[in-house]
Amino acid sequence: MIPLTLSSPSLTRLVLFTSRYSHTPFLRNFNSLPLINRKLPYNKPPFGVRCHASSSSSSSFTAKSSKEIRKTQTKVVVDEKLTSIRRLFSNPGVGIDAYIIPSQDAHQSEFIAECYARRAYISGFTGSAGTAIVTKDKAALWTDGRYFLQAEKQLNSSWSLMRAGNPGVPTASEWIADVLAPGGRVGIDPFLFSADAAEELKEVIAKKNHELVYLYNVNLVDEIWKDSRPKPPSKQIRIHDLKYAGVDVASKLLTLRNQIMDAGASAIVISMLDEIAWVLNLRGSDVPHSPVMYAYLIVEVDQAHLFVDNSKVTEEVKDHLKNAGIEIRPYDSILQEIDSLAARGAQLLMDPSSLNVAIISTYKSACERYTRNSESEERANLKFTDSSSGYIANPSGIYMQSPISWAKAIKNDAELQGMKNSHLRDAAALAHFWAWLEEEVHKNANLTEVDVADRLLEFRSLQDGFMDTSFDTISGSGANGAIIHYKPEPESCSRVDPKKLFLLDSGAQYVDGTTDITRTVHFSEPSAREKECFTRVLQGHIALDQAVFPEGTPGFVLDGFARSSLWKIGLDYRHGTGHGVGAALNVHEGPQSISYRYGNMTPLQNGMIVSNEPGYYEDHAFGIRIENLLHVRDAETPNRFGGVTYLGFEKLTFFPIQTKMVDVSLLSDTEIDWLNSYHEEVWEKVSPLLEGSSTQQWLWNNTRPLAKP
Amino acid sequence: MIPLTLSSPSLTRLVLFTSRYSHTPFLRNFNSLPLINRKLPYNKPPFGVRCHASSSSSSSFTAKSSKEIRKTQTKVVVDEKLTSIRRLFSNPGVGIDAYIIPSQDAHQSEFIAECYARRAYISGFTGSAGTAIVTKDKAALWTDGRYFLQAEKQLNSSWSLMRAGNPGVPTASEWIADVLAPGGRVGIDPFLFSADAAEELKEVIAKKNHELVYLYNVNLVDEIWKDSRPKPPSKQIRIHDLKYAGVDVASKLLTLRNQIMDAGASAIVISMLDEIAWVLNLRGSDVPHSPVMYAYLIVEVDQAHLFVDNSKVTEEVKDHLKNAGIEIRPYDSILQEIDSLAARGAQLLMDPSSLNVAIISTYKSACERYTRNSESEERANLKFTDSSSGYIANPSGIYMQSPISWAKAIKNDAELQGMKNSHLRDAAALAHFWAWLEEEVHKNANLTEVDVADRLLEFRSLQDGFMDTSFDTISGSGANGAIIHYKPEPESCSRVDPKKLFLLDSGAQYVDGTTDITRTVHFSEPSAREKECFTRVLQGHIALDQAVFPEGTPGFVLDGFARSSLWKIGLDYRHGTGHGVGAALNVHEGPQSISYRYGNMTPLQNGMIVSNEPGYYEDHAFGIRIENLLHVRDAETPNRFGGVTYLGFEKLTFFPIQTKMVDVSLLSDTEIDWLNSYHEEVWEKVSPLLEGSSTQQWLWNNTRPLAKP
Repeated sequence: MIPLTLSSPSLTRLVLFTSRYSHTPFLRNFNSLPLINRKLPYNKPPFGVRCHASSSSSSSFTAKSSKEIRKTQTKVVVDEKLTSIRRLFSNPGVGIDAYIIPSQDAHQSEFIAECYARRAYISGFTGSAGTAIVTKDKAALWTDGRYFLQAEKQLNSSWSLMRAGNPGVPTASEWIADVLAPGGRVGIDPFLFSADAAEELKEVIAKKNHELVYLYNVNLVDEIWKDSRPKPPSKQIRIHDLKYAGVDVASKLLTLRNQIMDAGASAIVISMLDEIAWVLNLRGSDVPHSPVMYAYLIVEVDQAHLFVDNSKVTEEVKDHLKNAGIEIRPYDSILQEIDSLAARGAQLLMDPSSLNVAIISTYKSACERYTRNSESEERANLKFTDSSSGYIANPSGIYMQSPISWAKAIKNDAELQGMKNSHLRDAAALAHFWAWLEEEVHKNANLTEVDVADRLLEFRSLQDGFMDTSFDTISGSGANGAIIHYKPEPESCSRVDPKKLFLLDSGAQYVDGTTDITRTVHFSEPSAREKECFTRVLQGHIALDQAVFPEGTPGFVLDGFARSSLWKIGLDYRHGTGHGVGAALNVHEGPQSISYRYGNMTPLQNGMIVSNEPGYYEDHAFGIRIENLLHVRDAETPNRFGGVTYLGFEKLTFFPIQTKMVDVSLLSDTEIDWLNSYHEEVWEKVSPLLEGSSTQQWLWNNTRPLAKP
Repeated sequence: MIPLTLSSPSLTRLVLFTSRYSHTPFLRNFNSLPLINRKLPYNKPPFGVRCHASSSSSSSFTAKSSKEIRKTQTKVVVDEKLTSIRRLFSNPGVGIDAYIIPSQDAHQSEFIAECYARRAYISGFTGSAGTAIVTKDKAALWTDGRYFLQAEKQLNSSWSLMRAGNPGVPTASEWIADVLAPGGRVGIDPFLFSADAAEELKEVIAKKNHELVYLYNVNLVDEIWKDSRPKPPSKQIRIHDLKYAGVDVASKLLTLRNQIMDAGASAIVISMLDEIAWVLNLRGSDVPHSPVMYAYLIVEVDQAHLFVDNSKVTEEVKDHLKNAGIEIRPYDSILQEIDSLAARGAQLLMDPSSLNVAIISTYKSACERYTRNSESEERANLKFTDSSSGYIANPSGIYMQSPISWAKAIKNDAELQGMKNSHLRDAAALAHFWAWLEEEVHKNANLTEVDVADRLLEFRSLQDGFMDTSFDTISGSGANGAIIHYKPEPESCSRVDPKKLFLLDSGAQYVDGTTDITRTVHFSEPSAREKECFTRVLQGHIALDQAVFPEGTPGFVLDGFARSSLWKIGLDYRHGTGHGVGAALNVHEGPQSISYRYGNMTPLQNGMIVSNEPGYYEDHAFGIRIENLLHVRDAETPNRFGGVTYLGFEKLTFFPIQTKMVDVSLLSDTEIDWLNSYHEEVWEKVSPLLEGSSTQQWLWNNTRPLAKP
């Protein structure tokens, strides 16, 4: 799946704050830099508790695919919603002039549960990325180039479509600052903005004398959504087997507590769902594609609390948590606990790039309040209760990148082994699929892009340990392949054209690992142009795969390696080259990346996993992408200049690259050797899993070496 | 010459503020980022004027090579100097506890006149880079790994050598903050620190409650140096012919004035000597290697003043300046003029990374003073005098990167042509030299590294338009080649060993251009190890030379291209890959660079010149570097994805690379083709200049194509 990802949570920040986020090589993104002790100058918000609708009914609700969500929503009359939400603006305790509705949930998740799809509900626009703003007399929606057509269709005439990235189009924050009369009050749900994003928004609108108002106790969209709002997901949580996790929860907590103390803190608040799943060796099913559950986790030096709806927690999971010394608290009680921690003088370690501003702002105002009342009985009593924790007197928070982000990124042996094993089973499923597809296409079967994605899912689901796809399959024939985040829809998708290029980017969640692979093929005769472009993409893929570099090198240093062959003829691609991948977790994870956004200084480290996916997209014609997953490991070089370790990559993905697409005359001998030895390895590793199947012959045919010209 | 350059002015900042500046790939240097409207919180300094010793005697003093300086200085008794300088600490108007003596002159020059070599005078250490600090009871000198041995020899026992970059060695600012009792007063000559460096120093020592004291009226080293201090240089300034400059002064001033007004300023203060020489189409001889003169330049919207010693200005130059509307003022009157500009309400555009803090601080305090007295008669009168200038009422300065830095970096056609022409003449000189050297070495002549450098100078000085070397020749045989900034000395240098590698990095100043070239050769049979290393350096050189990249790409994106082949076997080099080069100006210039220091976001642009000089250095064994100069130009790619221009490089340097050193089996066909076509081009371009000379045969022999294996 594609890195950098306009669909990732950072889109909201881009839409809010960046005038242009189309590809400019010098565009920098410093979001992922650690923020140390950043003091956030918040207003003291009213204290309150409201997180998500109570899930006391332990319904067996299943998150629907976004495709299903769309069908049910596009017919609703939109004007009435706007009228209703505007009516709420003047309610007691609200009193705002505008309301911003982002795409996110309270955890900055890439994939969200249906009940949190508030922006889609209010606007009717169901694309994965967008920000809606409603004022007393205007309604506007920002999205990016992928979704302009869809948004035009889905928005009614009450809405203005803001084509983010187009010349002259203001950012959402610029727009709101301009359209309101001075002294405007801009409301947000503070659970849906990271502290960083809220602070940035606040600064922009403050320049025009507007105030940012945190509405803790009510989400205005939920208010009008009412009974038709889907229930929160409540599927049961499962234990991620130690044989796949590699390290038990007690050990992870021990390491984490040392990191907390090293940072001068007494506790950490974690809201990223994959971080919580990783630390606790748990997996959930609350959202499609990501095996996570909605929860917050607070780890103190001597205790730990998981904030999660009890209905999801089986007896087995209860025991698992109890053994690790973790108590369960209601998901909705998170702000109460934050307040209580402040009262006890806890110094919280928090990542303002991922933690929502409701939590951070609550903590800061509570700290101020309790510091002021430090002599009062209330404080004395609370302090007494927890005197053993040795908390410091006047906490104010320690703001830095989550240490779990790092720990999770560097895979242990068991996680790596699970990734390797699941990739081979995935390759077997893919081989069955591609053998079937080629045969069908050659029979001139009338297959659509959606048919193909559905059939791929069937092949994958036959593999041991299959759980889910790891993202919506990108299945694009011909010109659709040039739409980078293309998602075929049954009612509008194309037939898989035997005479055009076909791009397939897909992945799966297995019990032991997560896969993500892109292949581009031609079913008949590719043009010279298609072959040249494919070959240059392949050269970039090989250059990155073969790179060796000294420890400490950030990923962006290698990004140019993957573009160099395309650049030579004036071609490029508008996305990053590599993203991190979780082990049986999210298909996109940080902190590392390989991107032309030069701000991410995270060095690549032994044990990290990254995708290698250069591409080329010719509008209205074809798209090409070749993606393998790699893991970073010591390169065992004959020298070690500077006394440092040199690192390189080892492939996790073993699946044929269509040699028909290669213009051999462009390749060096070394590049031909790379392709041939890769195919030899594919055959060796994957053919045993196809024993006795006719697919084995397909694999044999597709792993034959290229002759040097 | 080597980029990145521990010898560049930024070393002082590194020594003062960076604990480690040895090669770490993630080391960042943001010095060159533009600083916009940065407000510098200075103390109000006493106003005064003192810049350099009066040069009323128009002596025909010639700047001596630093080699000569060394000889005269190492014998002075150092203790007495320390005693003398400490005695001055308690003088009226001084009152300090420590004094910092950096290497720089008042213009942040890389090469300085002898009279400004104060750090060498006070400490006895004559290396190009170092910072001395004298307290009431301690004296310490910081230098880097290149100079540890030399400093050990040259410093007497009163001095502590601080080996910058070694583990546990504090930076100079950390050290001074620690050794003084709280409330210490740290004195500096504010002319010798850029505003950025002074501000940073001030912040570090303020943490320990020390105060930074600007001594405007006296340089303590000059006070004790007295009569033995060399006189300031006073060689005559010459006009840089329009046929080489390409653009006349009037046009340059017109552009500059538009930039000043666009920035919201009414005047610019320029102190970088190469910027002044470039704007005025003048050249000087005040320092070795750089064709510049000591001066300040202030350009206002309707007038301009050059602050320079009148004795250097010929009648011809006077006319040249007068025609461009530039008046001459005494060099020493710069601060008076700054004060007067503030009085007139001028809004000054200033670059705090290059302008000394004496100027910026004087301006800021004058602005405050005149703003306070804005109703007074003094102000009213001054304002009246210049009411036509339309200056704004309450100026405070506009702080940003100098626009001349950019204008100078992007060469016009005449400058490029001059660079091309001078490079061919330089190649002819080099061919004569290398033909001579090979013959001598094969005759087993007893030549030292210095003999060779001297003879090279002779060959070059025979070429039309030769003025000077562009830096001290680096002539290193065997292990000396591994010392990156090696400078052979007559008394200690090695013989050029016929059985070892020989590295020669040299350049010249011609009337029409500046050259800089490195070649590494073996006079007999290189080892397999030497050939492998050389070949990988060559592959890096070729990869960068052949790079194509979209406009907007900063140089650091390409740095990895030049290292990739070395990295594959765990090798690397501890310097950047490319630096900017002036056109008949300084051999090192900004703002662009190609370096593993990722902070320089300056995009490479059509018309810029950069060096391409990867290397490899094996301690105590050999050094390898292959350097050409390149200019950036449109790449004329068959596609222009994204609607942008793609850029590439064109070579300026045409001189053989020794094919004996190449392990052909490591090269791709493309790389062999590159080398062969380069040599074909060398022969075509340079052989006509050798017509009738036996050297032509040498060139023929050394440009024969390599066969593919």
